[in-house]
Amino acid sequence: MEAIVAEPINFYFFYGSIHCYLSVMRIGALASAAQIEVRWCPFNLREILIEQNNTAFVKNEVKMNYFWHDIERRSRRHAIAFAGRAPYPADPNLLALRVGVIAAKENWCQEYSRATFHEWFIGQRAPGVGDNVEQILISLNKTPASIIACANSPAIDDLLKHTTNDARQLGIFGAPTFAVGREIFWGDDRLGEAIEVATGPELPILGAG
Amino acid sequence: MEAIVAEPINFYFFYGSIHCYLSVMRIGALASAAQIEVRWCPFNLREILIEQNNTAFVKNEVKMNYFWHDIERRSRRHAIAFAGRAPYPADPNLLALRVGVIAAKENWCQEYSRATFHEWFIGQRAPGVGDNVEQILISLNKTPASIIACANSPAIDDLLKHTTNDARQLGIFGAPTFAVGREIFWGDDRLGEAIEVATGPELPILGAG
Repeated sequence: MEAIVAEPINFYFFYGSIHCYLSVMRIGALASAAQIEVRWCPFNLREILIEQNNTAFVKNEVKMNYFWHDIERRSRRHAIAFAGRAPYPADPNLLALRVGVIAAKENWCQEYSRATFHEWFIGQRAPGVGDNVEQILISLNKTPASIIACANSPAIDDLLKHTTNDARQLGIFGAPTFAVGREIFWGDDRLGEAIEVATGPELPILGAG
Repeated sequence: MEAIVAEPINFYFFYGSIHCYLSVMRIGALASAAQIEVRWCPFNLREILIEQNNTAFVKNEVKMNYFWHDIERRSRRHAIAFAGRAPYPADPNLLALRVGVIAAKENWCQEYSRATFHEWFIGQRAPGVGDNVEQILISLNKTPASIIACANSPAIDDLLKHTTNDARQLGIFGAPTFAVGREIFWGDDRLGEAIEVATGPELPILGAG
């Protein structure tokens, strides 16, 4: 096994964000090919959007039409399945997110997140709605009852707050965001650049702001 | 002279948008290398942002910090000069825009826009403020008095409304936006993709939305 010399990518994403679908599906293979470690960092984007007064875009029909169209054409570009607009709302009680925090801690976040987004975009069943979390855990040979009990524990709450606070400290305002050291790249269309920077000879040293 | 066979790119931009700086500076050489015609389409983004209730981002300090940092690192990436945050507000009375509409009509919009954004980002003098429009016109060997009189005429007002309405019809919500036929690409970081689509064998046919 070769040593990984590149910087890791901290992948900040959220189970209620449609924009994260492509990155959740793409990042594993891309990072693996570039010998980069991906640290899966599910965080509470909703809390950050609210505190930054950045929620009006969901009501901007023109912008949302573009986003959906862009996800569709980028799915085609990257040969990722797309079955039309996925249902909303998603993860209303943040259960999918809390389970994601456990999965990240126990190193099965990629499988869990891919399954969750696949269910959302292809199965048309939104994360955290009905028994979707349970069904996905079963499909991964996990025991839903114990995991969901743990998901609602203060320890996971603390871990979620910690990751969300890391996102805040990095200046994250949306998802997906890829962090290489303190350099952040917002949007699935910047994943390639994040990988390039992670594997590059040195991180860019730029002035503040 | 070789025939241009690719689709043209309609380049929608605004003199008050910092995000347009890199595209204004980059698009000419890129399109020329790809033998693509660029149609310069200055439009009233401010009107569209207001009607879409999409103005809160300018008060989101976290997001604006990212934008500035991203412009800075992308300037470096593309070997374009950057002299720190450019002053604001810009083009408060839309005079730079109205002159841009004339320039587009008369086919000197690239020189005018490059000079205007260079003054803004490198000279640190914002478009349409003080006598900046006059000075830029003089630097281009134009006669400011007659052009500025024309800029305030009903004919130019109509032309500006027409272009802004074209943007609206295309589903544009921000700038820069590159339109190839009815396919739109938002953001300087998608300029390469727009050129690829313009020069590709056919336009992507995708479902609505």
